[in-house]
Amino acid sequence: MSKDTLIVVGSVAFDSIETPRGNADEALGGSGTYFSYAASYFTRPRLVGVVGEDFPDEHRQLFAKRQIDTTGLTSEKGGKTFRWRGRYHSDMNNRDTLEVHLNVFGTFNPVLPPAFCDSTHVFLANGSPLIQAKVLDQIKKPQMVMADTMDLWISTMHNELLALLPRLDGLLLNESEALMLTKDHNLIRAGMAIRKLGPKFVIIKKGEHGSMLFTQDGVFLLPGYPTEEVIDPTGAGDSFAGGLMGQLCSDDSPPPGRLRRAMAYGTVVASFTVEGFGLDRLKKIERADIDKRLEHYKSMLDF
Amino acid sequence: MSKDTLIVVGSVAFDSIETPRGNADEALGGSGTYFSYAASYFTRPRLVGVVGEDFPDEHRQLFAKRQIDTTGLTSEKGGKTFRWRGRYHSDMNNRDTLEVHLNVFGTFNPVLPPAFCDSTHVFLANGSPLIQAKVLDQIKKPQMVMADTMDLWISTMHNELLALLPRLDGLLLNESEALMLTKDHNLIRAGMAIRKLGPKFVIIKKGEHGSMLFTQDGVFLLPGYPTEEVIDPTGAGDSFAGGLMGQLCSDDSPPPGRLRRAMAYGTVVASFTVEGFGLDRLKKIERADIDKRLEHYKSMLDF
Repeated sequence: MSKDTLIVVGSVAFDSIETPRGNADEALGGSGTYFSYAASYFTRPRLVGVVGEDFPDEHRQLFAKRQIDTTGLTSEKGGKTFRWRGRYHSDMNNRDTLEVHLNVFGTFNPVLPPAFCDSTHVFLANGSPLIQAKVLDQIKKPQMVMADTMDLWISTMHNELLALLPRLDGLLLNESEALMLTKDHNLIRAGMAIRKLGPKFVIIKKGEHGSMLFTQDGVFLLPGYPTEEVIDPTGAGDSFAGGLMGQLCSDDSPPPGRLRRAMAYGTVVASFTVEGFGLDRLKKIERADIDKRLEHYKSMLDF
Repeated sequence: MSKDTLIVVGSVAFDSIETPRGNADEALGGSGTYFSYAASYFTRPRLVGVVGEDFPDEHRQLFAKRQIDTTGLTSEKGGKTFRWRGRYHSDMNNRDTLEVHLNVFGTFNPVLPPAFCDSTHVFLANGSPLIQAKVLDQIKKPQMVMADTMDLWISTMHNELLALLPRLDGLLLNESEALMLTKDHNLIRAGMAIRKLGPKFVIIKKGEHGSMLFTQDGVFLLPGYPTEEVIDPTGAGDSFAGGLMGQLCSDDSPPPGRLRRAMAYGTVVASFTVEGFGLDRLKKIERADIDKRLEHYKSMLDF
């Protein structure tokens, strides 16, 4: 077993979700939640985040059950946990945000527990690039740093984001964000151009259409997993990242193909996430289910 | 070499195209043109279509040069060739049709040359399902019949299309058309549901996002070829079909995987088509270029 350790800094939230398949009220969510839960099938992730006094003990127990280290999940006295409410369109590819209450997450300034500063693998979930940089400053010897970002930071903190990029091994972002960041219309050119901004590799997430990896060796392509019944797409991207980095952190095999294999694992874990509201589906699977689906997925790509 | 023979019945047209990369005026196009040209790298396709008196001899010579049999390409005296004018949006995924003049294609009622009625592989390019059925009636012993369709026929000739489907081995259609035909929002369910309407397999084309195959054995996934510079997407779908059926017709290997491999060839041929206006790019390649790119494509999918 690898001695590598994985840390994620991200949000822990209550999500109220409406999709054509039903509703969920105050389901446990947030980028840190989905990432660490997905990664827990591969390694013992360290979760750093903040919640309010209203955060129930059963959620902490849920993390503990999957051996997620919540030493870094601080509870703010008198504060309320981040809340999000959204509604998905009938095609499940688009959604409207109906309500956002940042609450304690609005002033989140992550200070890592000293024991976490030796983490080798670091995931900076979507957040202000300034906060992401501050987190990275606290890691002594990072070996593999990946970050997610979004349109908000690309437009409002462009320079801060550009300053962060050279410090990353990998940047994850979605299709429209990649085009926005590079002011291009072609996704392949965009992926290659973002690499020139600093990160060693770039992963573009295309939702149901899969993902693409851009490295110095070229492009790698993964189609989406063919899901017959999407119940709730929330958390798919963070589950993808969690499966990816969890696998990467626990994989002792030689480098060529490691990142590709890890992306395939991320795809498969995310395919479980969308089959239920919140963590409902992930809660019901075991590592063997992931490996089995990975084999099936691989067989669907073979020609 | 296989004794199988491939026939395509489709349009031959003059396309005037505007894309963000430039313009083409009255470029040789149409589904029958792109299909047969793409297929000519694998076999000697038979092209059935109609043109007007204005169809220049150099275009016939172009077909002859690639050993496309144009015995079935009739010229209508006093008639004018089908003309289409369109403009692509900046993302190249959407286009506006500015002008359509069906001309001689408007009354096209294909009668196959007797020598063509022994064709084993049949491609019914996009057209009225009534005409498609009439073509199929003329083939003595079809072994592999594939058809393309579009939103227009799904809405205006629904019953005629449903009557054709059980006569097909494979139906090709794009993403939005598959959802329209099944009144579903999920592409995987749609692909499986269309199979229940009759065809042995269904291929859903997703443009830059690749394609999916649905058979009795399950789903097969192919990502799009990562093209850095799309010049003109016109004809990509018909080139895909042409490469696919050309390869299928010339491949003597055992069935498992044949269809998948053929789809990969179709993907690669289409990736050349979009690198130039009309047939510009395809005209410049040889079979070895296709094989080389196929190997590269395969390497981009390997994990």
